Amino acid sequence: MNVSVIGLGLIGGSYALSLKKRYEDLTIYGWDENLQNLEKAQELGLVDETCNSSADAISKSTWILLAIPVNAIEDHLPELLSTLSEGQILVDFGSTKKSICEAVADHPKRAQFIAAHPISGTEYSGPEAAFDSLFEDKVMIVCEEERSDRSFIDRFRKQCKTLGMSTTYLTADEHDIHLAYVSHLSHVISFGLSRTVLEKEEDENKILDLAGSGFASTVRLAKSSPEMWTPIFLKNRTAVLESLDSYLSKISEFRSLLNDEDKEGITNYLRESRAIRKILD
Amino acid sequence: MNVSVIGLGLIGGSYALSLKKRYEDLTIYGWDENLQNLEKAQELGLVDETCNSSADAISKSTWILLAIPVNAIEDHLPELLSTLSEGQILVDFGSTKKSICEAVADHPKRAQFIAAHPISGTEYSGPEAAFDSLFEDKVMIVCEEERSDRSFIDRFRKQCKTLGMSTTYLTADEHDIHLAYVSHLSHVISFGLSRTVLEKEEDENKILDLAGSGFASTVRLAKSSPEMWTPIFLKNRTAVLESLDSYLSKISEFRSLLNDEDKEGITNYLRESRAIRKILD
Repeated sequence: MNVSVIGLGLIGGSYALSLKKRYEDLTIYGWDENLQNLEKAQELGLVDETCNSSADAISKSTWILLAIPVNAIEDHLPELLSTLSEGQILVDFGSTKKSICEAVADHPKRAQFIAAHPISGTEYSGPEAAFDSLFEDKVMIVCEEERSDRSFIDRFRKQCKTLGMSTTYLTADEHDIHLAYVSHLSHVISFGLSRTVLEKEEDENKILDLAGSGFASTVRLAKSSPEMWTPIFLKNRTAVLESLDSYLSKISEFRSLLNDEDKEGITNYLRESRAIRKILD
Repeated sequence: MNVSVIGLGLIGGSYALSLKKRYEDLTIYGWDENLQNLEKAQELGLVDETCNSSADAISKSTWILLAIPVNAIEDHLPELLSTLSEGQILVDFGSTKKSICEAVADHPKRAQFIAAHPISGTEYSGPEAAFDSLFEDKVMIVCEEERSDRSFIDRFRKQCKTLGMSTTYLTADEHDIHLAYVSHLSHVISFGLSRTVLEKEEDENKILDLAGSGFASTVRLAKSSPEMWTPIFLKNRTAVLESLDSYLSKISEFRSLLNDEDKEGITNYLRESRAIRKILD
């Protein structure tokens, strides 16, 4: 089997490595418009062969993954889809789904496209960050699966299973609002915390020498790629703003309780928040 | 050597285990006014002998650790300190230091007290959460060390070294403002994020099934003990409010950029925040 991966960062590179680990007789073709990433991906063995364009990558394989920033997916997906021959399947792993699905809603080859999103990632990016177990025990979300060819969806689900993933189905709207709350908002929060502490450190030197594992955990996502996250926030702007406004009202509620020295109110607030323990390990 | 630990939760229990791991001929006496914790601590081998009061615990050892919530430290420290005989040393590990130091500022036995704070912890609490490597490679902050007996400070620094810790010295004011930014604020943020997502889940069932490792990392501290954290926030109210207001202004700045669809502004914001990478591993 030949598989082409367009976009050889953390996600595309890890997908390539994960397939190579689990399938025999597989050739991975890769393309990345960042030529340093392309070279690095070959050097690291993420791909077997490099291509010289998206079109070249598409021409090589039946199975094609698009793992580029969400704005680039939306911009290029319609034209790329147009070039597919019968039997070829194009999958995207973008972190927002609504605008991407809308961009190809009336496309004559819509059935050859699968709108997917693996709930997996790290704060690192680029081909060096890729590893072959990124997707293990994770969830793959598929949106508008009824718009994709049934047999392609079946093959994709099987592939996900081989990669150790479970599959779940959502509308693109549901996907984007859910992800705003359980992923995108966490990133906004981390970036904001980082900015707050970095500014304070300018006044009070070495404040970060005192940071423990709690701060490290809460601020971790602030290491994420601005080039990947700017388009995610913009493409999911309405849902992110909704989640952010809800969050700001919760934080303001805490601020009032603390300002008023309302001991009982603070304890109740913390107790209710702590219920997350029952849900997360 | 005899050591008494008053408060047998995560911190007191881990201190007991850490000493037992590294010192021979050591007897650990323990007391916790929560009798279930006291029993559990003995069952788990955190302590060799249980006591029947703080006074009993103090009577048993030269070296006494106070590892109870910060409001309880402030309330009980003056009277406990009064009961010390010559040569006995009382150390506290509370997460705020200013109000604790103030409570004994003019105490005739101030020199027998060491105001310390190990930068270590987890989101778990109680004796079951204790483990013997909690303090390894961590920082111990000592405040107002000039108010403590020089020989006691020397012995404490040596003990910290044996536990694998480095020691740093701050004023109580510096401690509280720094910790507000690099610890207490992270907890406020996590509790608020948890509350936001739990409320949303009431409307949209199973939203948390889609939570990945990023959310888990950012929300982790929301599992922390309300009984421990309510007093920390209240005792460090001014500094926590300062850090929270700074954070709210940073988050509001992001909100405006996103609302205005200011792509360049968002990217710059994320890039500047990402500078935390250079400081944290």
